[in-house]
Amino acid sequence: MTRCDVLVVGGTHGNEINGAWLVDQWRDQHDLLDAAGLSLALEIGNPEARTANRRYVDRDLNRCFTADLLNQGGQEQELQRARQLLAWHGPDGATPCRVALDLHSTTAAMGSCLVVYGRRPADLALAARVQGALGLPIYLHEADAAQTGFLVEQWPCGLVIEVGPVPQGVLDALVVRQTRIALETCCQELAAARAGTGRDPHNLVVHRHLGSVDLPRDQRDCAAAMVHPQLQGQDWRPLMDGAAMFELPRGGTVPLQADEGETWPLFINEAAYAEKRIAFSLTRREVWPIDPSWGQALEQLMG
Amino acid sequence: MTRCDVLVVGGTHGNEINGAWLVDQWRDQHDLLDAAGLSLALEIGNPEARTANRRYVDRDLNRCFTADLLNQGGQEQELQRARQLLAWHGPDGATPCRVALDLHSTTAAMGSCLVVYGRRPADLALAARVQGALGLPIYLHEADAAQTGFLVEQWPCGLVIEVGPVPQGVLDALVVRQTRIALETCCQELAAARAGTGRDPHNLVVHRHLGSVDLPRDQRDCAAAMVHPQLQGQDWRPLMDGAAMFELPRGGTVPLQADEGETWPLFINEAAYAEKRIAFSLTRREVWPIDPSWGQALEQLMG
Repeated sequence: MTRCDVLVVGGTHGNEINGAWLVDQWRDQHDLLDAAGLSLALEIGNPEARTANRRYVDRDLNRCFTADLLNQGGQEQELQRARQLLAWHGPDGATPCRVALDLHSTTAAMGSCLVVYGRRPADLALAARVQGALGLPIYLHEADAAQTGFLVEQWPCGLVIEVGPVPQGVLDALVVRQTRIALETCCQELAAARAGTGRDPHNLVVHRHLGSVDLPRDQRDCAAAMVHPQLQGQDWRPLMDGAAMFELPRGGTVPLQADEGETWPLFINEAAYAEKRIAFSLTRREVWPIDPSWGQALEQLMG
Repeated sequence: MTRCDVLVVGGTHGNEINGAWLVDQWRDQHDLLDAAGLSLALEIGNPEARTANRRYVDRDLNRCFTADLLNQGGQEQELQRARQLLAWHGPDGATPCRVALDLHSTTAAMGSCLVVYGRRPADLALAARVQGALGLPIYLHEADAAQTGFLVEQWPCGLVIEVGPVPQGVLDALVVRQTRIALETCCQELAAARAGTGRDPHNLVVHRHLGSVDLPRDQRDCAAAMVHPQLQGQDWRPLMDGAAMFELPRGGTVPLQADEGETWPLFINEAAYAEKRIAFSLTRREVWPIDPSWGQALEQLMG
């Protein structure tokens, strides 16, 4: 059976066009990407949504990868596509991949960062080592029953590379460059893990998900306020209790009430999260010591 | 017959949500907008597209207002809506409006500006006086057979208020504020024209449309280059012959070949124009003396 090291997915959301454009380029011209000697499978996550320039057709593909949804008989377009990607490149697929790297973009001012789902040792090792190499911040998404079923969770190891701000449907040369650099660094660290030459940094800095905050709503369930101009674009910066959170139509301010001290907002005013009723998410910045077992898990996976 | 001074339209494009949000607010709370004593008709341009969070359902509503399209029997959703808006508020409609002001947003770094279609005297008077009051730049769109049928052209006087950059689908408090200020200033100048107290500035500065430039394309007709990082965000700034225009996948640069000297790019990398094959438009900056007949035309219209 043919195996493959890394599944690289662009366009899991059809209107996040930068990663999909890169996948097209790399498919045509392999030398545009330095994969550090790894074998890659390159896929457009949601080709139909991409053609329509929409996030999805029937439902968000990057919320479809739960056992329940995959095993039920639902025939929505994205459920079929999720099963297809797993049949091709999942752990039990025709050409299985060890690792999945999923290229996303956001309208929020997130810069170039990694998203990790939960605390799987190999994920934490890869994220820590990429952070050690590039300094990228890491959003640790966990314990949110309203947001589950992320693609990379179905592979033994996987991360999201998230870059912004960029509007949906806009090809942006700097976003393309940041995405390529982050992906190449992931490949380098995976290759180093295989070679046994990977090095952990001294610690891992994560922004751990606490929960999400919706806009105030009126009796028609419409947005009754806006993200405050003092908050817009302030991703990865600490918010203290009482900071301006929303601006009301007459100019008043709704302050943050943070019972537990300093929080760090992320994905502030991401366009696609409006329908998910997320104006922004709140996180806590934590510095974790490296556990040597993480690197061992990654080396075993890549061995 | 009831008459109305100004038709204000937000959400002519369903994913340009800031103007539509303002229209909703003003419908509920009239005192949020200072209309300078004018009577307003407030409309959501394309409610179905807004619900779908898309620019349009069947075709771009803001390219439907040509006599040919309106008079042919086409039943696409936006053609029906265009006829409906004219039946309600057009010059021969049930509640006719003298002026149409259409609120748009863009992903390009256009700031707050006005778009004028052609050289109708009343349009030029209103645009010049708003420019005199606020300093807004003016994009004069004319003589482009590929882009016709703009909503405001069907009213005796009409402008587009265009604000950016903002991603599609993002409610942005600063964009909302800029939109409201530009609209209120239009209302003030229209009221002053009615009172005979309007004052022309010394001249009118326009950026006159010359044509549009598409991305280089490959044999599959896909984008084969990106807007150059040195050009991204540089709307309203002069480009000289040889300036970097596009970046190729391997890092090479495609320079601008401008045979006629200095040009000024606008709507650089507007998301919605990708399907129209417009990476940006080129304009020439021109300073025109004020013709007194413009103001007379506006005063006659508002009288």
